[in-house]
Amino acid sequence: MKRLQLLAALWLTALAAVAQQAIFEKHDTRSPQLNADGTVTLRIKAPEATKVSVVGDCISGGRAEMTKEGDMWTYTTDALPAELYNYRFYVDGAEVQDAGNIERSRDVRSFMSTFIVSREEGDKGWLYQNHNVEHGDVSHVWYDSPTLGMRRRMSIYTPPGYDKGKAYPVLYLLHGAGGDEEAWLTLGRMAQIMDNLIALGKAKPMIVVTPNGNASDDAGPLETGLSKKEWPQKTYEESFPDIMNYVKEHYKIKKGAANTAICGLSMGGYHTFRISMLNPKAFGYMGLFSAAVRLDRSQKSLEEQLQEHPEAVEQLKALFDAQPKLYWIAIGKEDFLFGQNVALRSYLDKMHYPYEYYENEGGHIWRNWRIYLSMFAQRLF
Amino acid sequence: MKRLQLLAALWLTALAAVAQQAIFEKHDTRSPQLNADGTVTLRIKAPEATKVSVVGDCISGGRAEMTKEGDMWTYTTDALPAELYNYRFYVDGAEVQDAGNIERSRDVRSFMSTFIVSREEGDKGWLYQNHNVEHGDVSHVWYDSPTLGMRRRMSIYTPPGYDKGKAYPVLYLLHGAGGDEEAWLTLGRMAQIMDNLIALGKAKPMIVVTPNGNASDDAGPLETGLSKKEWPQKTYEESFPDIMNYVKEHYKIKKGAANTAICGLSMGGYHTFRISMLNPKAFGYMGLFSAAVRLDRSQKSLEEQLQEHPEAVEQLKALFDAQPKLYWIAIGKEDFLFGQNVALRSYLDKMHYPYEYYENEGGHIWRNWRIYLSMFAQRLF
Repeated sequence: MKRLQLLAALWLTALAAVAQQAIFEKHDTRSPQLNADGTVTLRIKAPEATKVSVVGDCISGGRAEMTKEGDMWTYTTDALPAELYNYRFYVDGAEVQDAGNIERSRDVRSFMSTFIVSREEGDKGWLYQNHNVEHGDVSHVWYDSPTLGMRRRMSIYTPPGYDKGKAYPVLYLLHGAGGDEEAWLTLGRMAQIMDNLIALGKAKPMIVVTPNGNASDDAGPLETGLSKKEWPQKTYEESFPDIMNYVKEHYKIKKGAANTAICGLSMGGYHTFRISMLNPKAFGYMGLFSAAVRLDRSQKSLEEQLQEHPEAVEQLKALFDAQPKLYWIAIGKEDFLFGQNVALRSYLDKMHYPYEYYENEGGHIWRNWRIYLSMFAQRLF
Repeated sequence: MKRLQLLAALWLTALAAVAQQAIFEKHDTRSPQLNADGTVTLRIKAPEATKVSVVGDCISGGRAEMTKEGDMWTYTTDALPAELYNYRFYVDGAEVQDAGNIERSRDVRSFMSTFIVSREEGDKGWLYQNHNVEHGDVSHVWYDSPTLGMRRRMSIYTPPGYDKGKAYPVLYLLHGAGGDEEAWLTLGRMAQIMDNLIALGKAKPMIVVTPNGNASDDAGPLETGLSKKEWPQKTYEESFPDIMNYVKEHYKIKKGAANTAICGLSMGGYHTFRISMLNPKAFGYMGLFSAAVRLDRSQKSLEEQLQEHPEAVEQLKALFDAQPKLYWIAIGKEDFLFGQNVALRSYLDKMHYPYEYYENEGGHIWRNWRIYLSMFAQRLF
């Protein structure tokens, strides 16, 4: 950045006394500062504040008071393992992002500043960073959904080497409630994970399609063209073939269940569960990440819901009769949807339907979903 | 958003006592609030703050103190004409974005919250908003630059209807110093301007290519894969045919100068000036927006620089001998590069090289560059 500003200063002669563009604004607060001992120092300039705290998953206990030194407030974390971390300041009660850090992510309506700690090639932090490897392209396209009666936006990753005539398998990657077609790219670091796993030879080159899963919206809140919309008659799950048709028509893909995967987090796990039941021969690989596993909105157990929905029992039978290569369930021990996944596994066990299960620490958080995607992608195709 | 949260609450049964995801976070501050009388009320919750100010181009005088009411600080603007506005709060000296507003733009390393005021279809604010019109797609691709010795990232807009076999003309749209391949999409609202002008029938459907103009970078700071890079031997201007070759090979385009345009702001205006001189028969339309107009880094006048660079005199002659359809110069009266543009116009007048000139209020700011793009795009093809 300094070099750029120097360059700008060199050729932009006759600089006005008054700065007219953001390039002349100074952001010299060094934050976050990754220290040699593995700790990270966060800083914020707030000369007139009486109290500044920091909140985030990099803070032991989740929240800490910062210390004032001159105009600057600072806090140094414990030594941190490789991971993507988030944080936010509170200055006299107001929510504040780190002005020294351009890495920020939106989760639904909330922003957090973020940083990545990596110790060595291939660790979790490394997987989420940009490296000097071949990169895939990312497109934001509008597809026609006759089922929902609108044009809708989705994001599509094509791997390095795409466009040389070869066909690729496809992973459909679904977001959670409140998310949109940007969520897996920003919070989920999908493009970095895919670039890096492919560069390491740990995942096969594939196309990754990440649509918008909110049936009443045409796009995420920053891109939507609709101010108001009637709730559609059909569900997102029913509309899913519209997405697959667009991908088939516009991309060079390998066809058939052996070359088609679907996975998603939370509501996207629910969508994966239901879409694969509605299309029992379409997907060879299914991944349920912290999934909501329900058949209707009642408070009844999954077992009871299955008794009331004989068509769902048939759909699950058809799905497993097609002998998918992988039905993968992943959830954290503290996830509030843990019980629903216990119920699903009990049913699959009872029916002798084969699946694989991964359980780790933590709750219903992006940290886990990035891990699950990294693991699931390595099992595909 | 409320409906979404309701939906989530309905089907995410068994909600944990502790919120685990941002969807459960409340952001109920109504800010910005567009009032019926044309004013806009900004609000921020900062219960313990002693002083809160707001800075931005929507504030008369550029800065104002906010008033405390309970936990909330508020400020109401004057009645505002149709435009895209930006602002930022300062809470006891700390820089703060509006937590109630997810619309934020990064300019180099600075963030501002933004909102759009529109009074009627077709006004400036309307042009920058998403509407229920046909949308173009936006792709972020990596192209090979043999001239600079790296793969580099750029963004490409394809108009509604693209992919039906038809070929389209191409506009190359260049950013300023410190910007990157995202700048015209975020601050510049390029995709919205193009969608809306095309929907109104005021611009022809075209492909718009917005590359990264910093020769030493492969991508913007959020996407770059390079930690350090030697300064390239060649310039960005010299590498420009690499970009045009990629576009020719990967997109269905109409060829020839009559179907090719280039424009840019500030450093991108300089690039437009120089790239069109290096490729005198490539572009039928050139747009210099608040351009830096120099031939070298000396402090000499353009006239003196031209005397020292006879090759540049020849290049300009070849450019105008090719009889381009439009050489368009636009700048604000308070722009610090105004003098350089006076010098350019004097030279063009002296040589009887035809050009068109647009001058308006204001300085070296995105507000002007959005206006210039909206005007220039209507003149093309």
